[in-house]
Amino acid sequence: MNVNGKHYRTIWEKEDNPRAVEIIDQRYLPHNFVIEQLNNWKEVAIAIKEMHVRGAGLIGATAGYGMYLATLENAEDNFLEEAGKQLKATRPTAVNLAWAVDRQLAAIKRVGEDKLSRILSAHQTAKKIADEDTEYCRKLGEYGVKIIEEIYQNKKDVVNIETHCNAGWLAFVDYGSALSPIYVAHEKGIPVHVWVDITGPWNQGAKLTAWELGQQGIPHTIIADNTGGHLMQIGKVDMMITGADRVAINGDAANKIGTYLKAVVAKDNNIPFYIALPSSTFDWNIGSGKEIPIEERGSDEVKYASGLTKEGKIEKVLLTPENSPALNYGFDVTPARLIEGLITERGICKADKESILNLFPEHKK
Amino acid sequence: MNVNGKHYRTIWEKEDNPRAVEIIDQRYLPHNFVIEQLNNWKEVAIAIKEMHVRGAGLIGATAGYGMYLATLENAEDNFLEEAGKQLKATRPTAVNLAWAVDRQLAAIKRVGEDKLSRILSAHQTAKKIADEDTEYCRKLGEYGVKIIEEIYQNKKDVVNIETHCNAGWLAFVDYGSALSPIYVAHEKGIPVHVWVDITGPWNQGAKLTAWELGQQGIPHTIIADNTGGHLMQIGKVDMMITGADRVAINGDAANKIGTYLKAVVAKDNNIPFYIALPSSTFDWNIGSGKEIPIEERGSDEVKYASGLTKEGKIEKVLLTPENSPALNYGFDVTPARLIEGLITERGICKADKESILNLFPEHKK
Repeated sequence: MNVNGKHYRTIWEKEDNPRAVEIIDQRYLPHNFVIEQLNNWKEVAIAIKEMHVRGAGLIGATAGYGMYLATLENAEDNFLEEAGKQLKATRPTAVNLAWAVDRQLAAIKRVGEDKLSRILSAHQTAKKIADEDTEYCRKLGEYGVKIIEEIYQNKKDVVNIETHCNAGWLAFVDYGSALSPIYVAHEKGIPVHVWVDITGPWNQGAKLTAWELGQQGIPHTIIADNTGGHLMQIGKVDMMITGADRVAINGDAANKIGTYLKAVVAKDNNIPFYIALPSSTFDWNIGSGKEIPIEERGSDEVKYASGLTKEGKIEKVLLTPENSPALNYGFDVTPARLIEGLITERGICKADKESILNLFPEHKK
Repeated sequence: MNVNGKHYRTIWEKEDNPRAVEIIDQRYLPHNFVIEQLNNWKEVAIAIKEMHVRGAGLIGATAGYGMYLATLENAEDNFLEEAGKQLKATRPTAVNLAWAVDRQLAAIKRVGEDKLSRILSAHQTAKKIADEDTEYCRKLGEYGVKIIEEIYQNKKDVVNIETHCNAGWLAFVDYGSALSPIYVAHEKGIPVHVWVDITGPWNQGAKLTAWELGQQGIPHTIIADNTGGHLMQIGKVDMMITGADRVAINGDAANKIGTYLKAVVAKDNNIPFYIALPSSTFDWNIGSGKEIPIEERGSDEVKYASGLTKEGKIEKVLLTPENSPALNYGFDVTPARLIEGLITERGICKADKESILNLFPEHKK
């Protein structure tokens, strides 16, 4: 998508140095647009762990490049398996991370023991993961827009869509999951307006979603995480779409902490709640959301807020008493019963095992 | 309650100057403990409007003193009615504000036209409103503790209670509403632990609830507003108690924005959700929550966070893109069907008209 009118992806190969990749360091948004060069797999691990990049698809694509950079260092099984293990451990909830690492390891081993072949294979796979992510996100946007279009045809007025966290192009390689149908609607001239949950403690909504919607010229309004319920009660939300970090085969969906709250309240107000995801976000190995590990992050993310001072410096301020403890779970699980549908690159399906496997029959066991 | 071991109320008469009152200026908590002197009714209006004081009971008590200070300036009907009107307009949702102003006006008019009698009457009523608030909060704590005690007897382990916003002593004259049963439980030696919702955008939970619980030595943990649902899903919340700003005669309760979200999710997990309130928070004139006006505040409260810098200064930082709009509703309405019970100074009742009027038969019409 665009930044100041110029097209970007969130991760790309460096043309003047194919032994490195570049990313947008999202910690500085919306205030500064900073590009960071990652030179080896350890820098990739840090970038994922410390949220220079975040979001299901982008974590997967970055890990894919991390494995490629690892082969440049040492293409032997033991080394690559250890690098893969450490990359996987950086963020436990998003399944795309493990999926990308495992895909790389399988592809690398398939070409045999030759070092150069392994490097070239990993280079190829990394690019393929990034390109597929882009293609799937674009496609699911084209399916998802039909829901927005239908609401618009009935309402004949601006469609108000609430979203939580950031599941836009910044969370993927391009387009995004939850925001992709919105971008397609905007391109098609369907009037949309997005309610952006600020999404504490890290404030991905305020920092990333609002910024990327603003850059594409999409009307939006930032709200406190507490506000969505009231807006639904007074009829100001037509639908809700979020992304997901891992979806179980029964349709239970782990996503940014607070998603479950919004799904319950959407149900209480008969407002359709959708999850948009490329198929890389399904975990085909688990039967329900109970098996999804929930990441616990440092308590300082709750106790401090980071933003721009009057003087234009990015600074952290302490919100709480210095000695009060805080707890910081990164995700929660929305039970399938609260989800109206899953928007994927192969179409929209109900959030249940049968419907999911009908769209993805290759995963029937 | 205590601040550094010394007893305080949130508002008190000055002994060396009975023509003024003092308050704790809550804008500087938890970082600085600042006492402000209010010298006339206009300063009182500013203190309420700009949230030097906040919370249902304290707004009422402060407005009571505001009317007293107004009589010192001019005790005639026209003047007092205009002062009362302006005081009421400062915060539209909390019913205690209108209730205190109307109670003052009725009492003042009852003593006739004599200026000194009017001043003395207003002085008396202001003190009475503050003392009653304290007494009612203490009493409702003694009723509410029975619920905590029962959970403790079944569980035989620490009782985990979630609360939203600040409905502690800082929101009243003393003791508080939601926190009063918790203070009584702590005094009685029942082990309690409080999950404190940070309560954006103004962060009353992080700033005030955590501070006052810390000052009384009550174990507590601050969580993002998004976290409560997950904690309920994994069995870490035994009950939820909040305060209210206005409760309709059918039991619908307006409280800080986001309360409704938590009430829905508590119901989804079979966790009892209580509202604690002194009877001054009932609005006997409205049939349901639909009639409660919902205050909209400035969008900067959403776009900025205020806290302590490394250098120890309180500063505001911008969280969002500078040009993104934000919307800031202060309250939402929790429908009575989601409320397990109302904890009042006369006991606990169901959230329905019949049960409420059985406890307060003087309001039957």
